[in-house]
Amino acid sequence: MTERVLIKDLSALADQTVTVSGWVETVRDQKKVQFVVLRDESGAVQLVNPRNTDADGIVIPDEPAVTISALTQGSFVTATGSLKHDERVKLGGLEIKLDSLSVASLADPATPIAPDSGIDKRMDWRFLDLRVPRNALIFRVQTTLEHAFRTYWIDRGYVEIHTPKLMASPSESNAELFKLDYFDTTAYLAQSPQFFKQMAQSAGFGKIFDIGPVFRADPSFTSRHATEYTGVDAEVSWIDSHEDVMVMQEELLVAGFTAVAQKHGAEISELFGIDIVVPSIPFPRIPLHEAKQIVAARGHVIDRADDDLDPEGERQIAAHVEETFGHQFVFLTEYPTSIRPFYHMRSDENPALTKSYDLIFRGTEITTGAQREHRVEILEAQAVEKGLDPRELDYYLDFFRHGVPPHGGFGMGLARVLMLMLDQGNLREVTYLFRGPTRLTP
Amino acid sequence: MTERVLIKDLSALADQTVTVSGWVETVRDQKKVQFVVLRDESGAVQLVNPRNTDADGIVIPDEPAVTISALTQGSFVTATGSLKHDERVKLGGLEIKLDSLSVASLADPATPIAPDSGIDKRMDWRFLDLRVPRNALIFRVQTTLEHAFRTYWIDRGYVEIHTPKLMASPSESNAELFKLDYFDTTAYLAQSPQFFKQMAQSAGFGKIFDIGPVFRADPSFTSRHATEYTGVDAEVSWIDSHEDVMVMQEELLVAGFTAVAQKHGAEISELFGIDIVVPSIPFPRIPLHEAKQIVAARGHVIDRADDDLDPEGERQIAAHVEETFGHQFVFLTEYPTSIRPFYHMRSDENPALTKSYDLIFRGTEITTGAQREHRVEILEAQAVEKGLDPRELDYYLDFFRHGVPPHGGFGMGLARVLMLMLDQGNLREVTYLFRGPTRLTP
Repeated sequence: MTERVLIKDLSALADQTVTVSGWVETVRDQKKVQFVVLRDESGAVQLVNPRNTDADGIVIPDEPAVTISALTQGSFVTATGSLKHDERVKLGGLEIKLDSLSVASLADPATPIAPDSGIDKRMDWRFLDLRVPRNALIFRVQTTLEHAFRTYWIDRGYVEIHTPKLMASPSESNAELFKLDYFDTTAYLAQSPQFFKQMAQSAGFGKIFDIGPVFRADPSFTSRHATEYTGVDAEVSWIDSHEDVMVMQEELLVAGFTAVAQKHGAEISELFGIDIVVPSIPFPRIPLHEAKQIVAARGHVIDRADDDLDPEGERQIAAHVEETFGHQFVFLTEYPTSIRPFYHMRSDENPALTKSYDLIFRGTEITTGAQREHRVEILEAQAVEKGLDPRELDYYLDFFRHGVPPHGGFGMGLARVLMLMLDQGNLREVTYLFRGPTRLTP
Repeated sequence: MTERVLIKDLSALADQTVTVSGWVETVRDQKKVQFVVLRDESGAVQLVNPRNTDADGIVIPDEPAVTISALTQGSFVTATGSLKHDERVKLGGLEIKLDSLSVASLADPATPIAPDSGIDKRMDWRFLDLRVPRNALIFRVQTTLEHAFRTYWIDRGYVEIHTPKLMASPSESNAELFKLDYFDTTAYLAQSPQFFKQMAQSAGFGKIFDIGPVFRADPSFTSRHATEYTGVDAEVSWIDSHEDVMVMQEELLVAGFTAVAQKHGAEISELFGIDIVVPSIPFPRIPLHEAKQIVAARGHVIDRADDDLDPEGERQIAAHVEETFGHQFVFLTEYPTSIRPFYHMRSDENPALTKSYDLIFRGTEITTGAQREHRVEILEAQAVEKGLDPRELDYYLDFFRHGVPPHGGFGMGLARVLMLMLDQGNLREVTYLFRGPTRLTP
């Protein structure tokens, strides 16, 4: 490995000879002195090179001066020189006086995007867009958040599974489904790991999680939809109701937010201008019918044919919760059977309601969770009631015919959590490479 | 949640009333006493119910006796009773004298698979197959192995990325590619995250890893091939050669094997009859041409048209390494350019050789790694030389045109590592739900 020092670690070093590697952010090629701002994944530092002159005061074309003069923005270089702490230097209070500079890769001088480029243009050149410190930080935050989720689960005996993405039949509905030729037959891309994580319950795994891609052939162009995204899923045996799932999920989110606040809080505050608020437990819980009354009382008329909230309704109930409880999360419960899939368990007291919930974070839904119906006769009847053909579900119903514990779980969109946590307006900003109806590249 | 005790935790408890939940493994419904072996994800315990008789010695049809008599194998139940440590009980030296038993889900009495069922039949009923303790253990081992890999990387500043699986053009070759209709165009399923993890290098991410599904439309029916599997990938900037990648990978594997040995060593020894050997560092390294001489000297004639080893050759070189160095791993280096993809960097001294390696574990290849060519003119020339159309690679070549550090990485098949670690003969055994040319269900 190149024996480089990460730029963020320079400030803790005494003045000495150091080597740093990264890309050129700016060059100021002046007559008497040259300045280069070099950035790596951890920060930026100023390199300085006083030019040598001959007896007549004419600049000598020596190294590294000649190389610096030819540098283009975005070129990757390794620089060695004398680290000097100097409070007058704006950038971090230090600079490196160059001994040598070697170019690993010279960038094309044409820079296709600028700070004010539109989001589509930036997505075309995503690898350049991700060099912006704020954009790169998003993926370090994602890494920390996910690792905290996994650690929470693994410390509690969960098993991580990788459910297949190739399926012989649709997982939930025939809508929004990608189909492909699979040797002599047809396969479908999984719209969720739902059936396979329930299979783990029948297999006796107890508690499982699965983080992986899910696919939706959704023609929507909203800021909240993608055709491929990372799903964060869990499923747990021996629950009494969806409340057990909610308790687990709020603990999980607290673990994740705590880790992000500790590791990146200062940097997020600096680059995004926001504080990461670790939510308090328990999150507020509001039955959906009450939420609709609250939203109506706030003057919003819900514009939907079914019984669900619309996006503005989600924002309104979140605003109410923020004002009333000072909380950014709210569980909406008691969803009507009419707007839930066949496998959600229904309430014993009122079969028109399910034992399910949505979780709203800062006004946007990030999760649907539920206790699942595990009694096979009821499950099959509910499938028929929803217009599904039980023969197509036969392999799934088999999980229940051969014994299965009561269970439930949730699915959460990773990018939605990140988008809302970092106060971004669009999933594109928080997805490494976004996929939508008109976006398959790079 | 049901307030159950995990069965493995019973032995540490004093005799008291306990509740356990799990599935029925066996029932012995005798006249005077009933025995149930109950299993959960952590172990098995014997439940005992002495039957009550009336004054005439006739059995009274009371509870839980009646429920027990109706129990079928595989039913999920919750049992409450008095825990009693008793050395005479073979199963763990304890039993639970039942107070009550409630059935959550009664299993169909027909059990479609038996311990001697063939692998295809077992895969048809995978959720029952996974109730076998040894099979379930595989996924707890996988969880530990992956978490140790991620922790190794995250402790060293790596960023976890999720590369898209939907692509506008083939990633490496046109062979073995799944195609799908994507709105008004065609998409391909990613055969590897190769190009996208290299993109992270140009984006300045420094060090990244990616664990996710990859897809190969490979018609092979061998024990080592699947159409969908979990790839473990890493890519690192500022390497000097592939040797830097190899050093990282051997450290990573040591971290993974150490965690597995510590957490599951005893159980693996009990259920698989093998010891997890934490490999010593450095792993042996042998140039491919030497490996071929060694294999030839052992009497094996390689049966391949190209310059690579065949599977028997891999086994022979592994046997040599085991005999000579007492090591289960070997890096084969100096692979010819002819059998490597265009993006592998070639040796400065001999352009007929690449700066790449394969890693062989117990006689089977688990990894290909390399330094990548980052100089765009050379990269493009190598693509043309391999018969690729650079126009189709334009978006990929852009990563290099705008500056990129020297970098390299590897891809490793998670299931292959598990298969070999646990001495299994087939990927099907170590994949949650295997996918092959004729296997898309359950």
